[in-house]
Amino acid sequence: MDILDNIRIVLVEPISGGNIGSVCRAMNNNGITDLAIINPRPETDWEDASKLSCKANAQLEARKEFSTLKEAIAGCTVVAGTSARTGFYRDTAHSPREFASITLESAKDHEIALVFGREDKGLSNEELALCTHIIQIPSSELYTSLNLSHAVTVCCYEIFAASGTFQPSEEKAEEANSELRERMFDVWREMMIKTEFTHEQKLEHMMMGLRRIFSRGKLTVPDVKILMGLAKQSIWVSNQWKNKEK
Amino acid sequence: MDILDNIRIVLVEPISGGNIGSVCRAMNNNGITDLAIINPRPETDWEDASKLSCKANAQLEARKEFSTLKEAIAGCTVVAGTSARTGFYRDTAHSPREFASITLESAKDHEIALVFGREDKGLSNEELALCTHIIQIPSSELYTSLNLSHAVTVCCYEIFAASGTFQPSEEKAEEANSELRERMFDVWREMMIKTEFTHEQKLEHMMMGLRRIFSRGKLTVPDVKILMGLAKQSIWVSNQWKNKEK
Repeated sequence: MDILDNIRIVLVEPISGGNIGSVCRAMNNNGITDLAIINPRPETDWEDASKLSCKANAQLEARKEFSTLKEAIAGCTVVAGTSARTGFYRDTAHSPREFASITLESAKDHEIALVFGREDKGLSNEELALCTHIIQIPSSELYTSLNLSHAVTVCCYEIFAASGTFQPSEEKAEEANSELRERMFDVWREMMIKTEFTHEQKLEHMMMGLRRIFSRGKLTVPDVKILMGLAKQSIWVSNQWKNKEK
Repeated sequence: MDILDNIRIVLVEPISGGNIGSVCRAMNNNGITDLAIINPRPETDWEDASKLSCKANAQLEARKEFSTLKEAIAGCTVVAGTSARTGFYRDTAHSPREFASITLESAKDHEIALVFGREDKGLSNEELALCTHIIQIPSSELYTSLNLSHAVTVCCYEIFAASGTFQPSEEKAEEANSELRERMFDVWREMMIKTEFTHEQKLEHMMMGLRRIFSRGKLTVPDVKILMGLAKQSIWVSNQWKNKEK
């Protein structure tokens, strides 16, 4: 995962130790490890940071500290600043998703930086001037100011998702083929008659309904076996019942 | 924004009041207002929740409390549970992005729910069985467990982004047309000669380089006026200098 190793998260004068820790956790969740902090405050609660970083204490301990943003990004080609406000300097913003595809291309060969401002005031115009890109995270007019670690979460999530290293869990069982599905429908047809759920006249209409229901998603081989077994059991019960009646 | 009003965030037995508040802030950032909590713990630090909710105190105060998940989702059609683990019941998961497009379709006419488990243990199999969908948030193998409010942030962000109500800031100034750009290049050409930056023989080669540089992004009318004014000033300075030499 060399690409993600080339991505540096830069926090400018963060106020809350808890937020720093939460940022480390979000980075860790997304395979990003390089953290730089500009001017950490002497009163920073590093214990709180450590607590909230969860398993990302290594990132937290390995952080680099700088006194200016300029030094922290000196080696980076693409430098993206995040901003909720708009205005001069801030007028051409990228969404986190657009930025993720831009940055992964550059991060193949170069270090790139994502810069996040102070919890209360964000980044100054002078700091944004050092950036090559501005990222604006979608937000409702109800309240546009994101928590620092939430902003990092969205940006890192988009980069990680675009890096394509993650595949959501998929059904591992084999999908049932038509022959197996039809055998199942035969058993269900028999079950509907044997249980006297429906008359012969209405049977095909009912079968069409069942086919529709069972076609809405993939059916795997184990799924079909469960459905077939269940119908066979009802047929068995029906036979028992009719034998008793005799 | 009726669609977003139909989306309910359900927290099952959350441990930390701070997390509940952070969830409210993330909801507010994404225009989602309906919060339900299953079995809130008597020891919940509601003061901390209120502090971290920032401007989302209204959501926090308007929360609905239920003793079972079943009651909280009774009126909902689509019910999505979030899970980091895989296994039986959890095998066909959707990414938050896939789910966002599924859910917005349903949320036009129906209430839908997103269900998030406890910070330490997530959702039980019994709780996941009540869900129609499973969402798996992309995460690195380094550490797959997201902070509760980060998980809510990613899901709400995807829904809000897909709802299409947000447009990133765009350059408002008009883009320069070819005629204006060519007038600018004429002034720059003159400037390069007058300042003796280049000889006539190399001029067109230099101009090609300049054209390439200025074509990498859109140039607006004000951009061109700045570039043109700057070159005109250098021409003026060159004229002063040559007049003095005479």
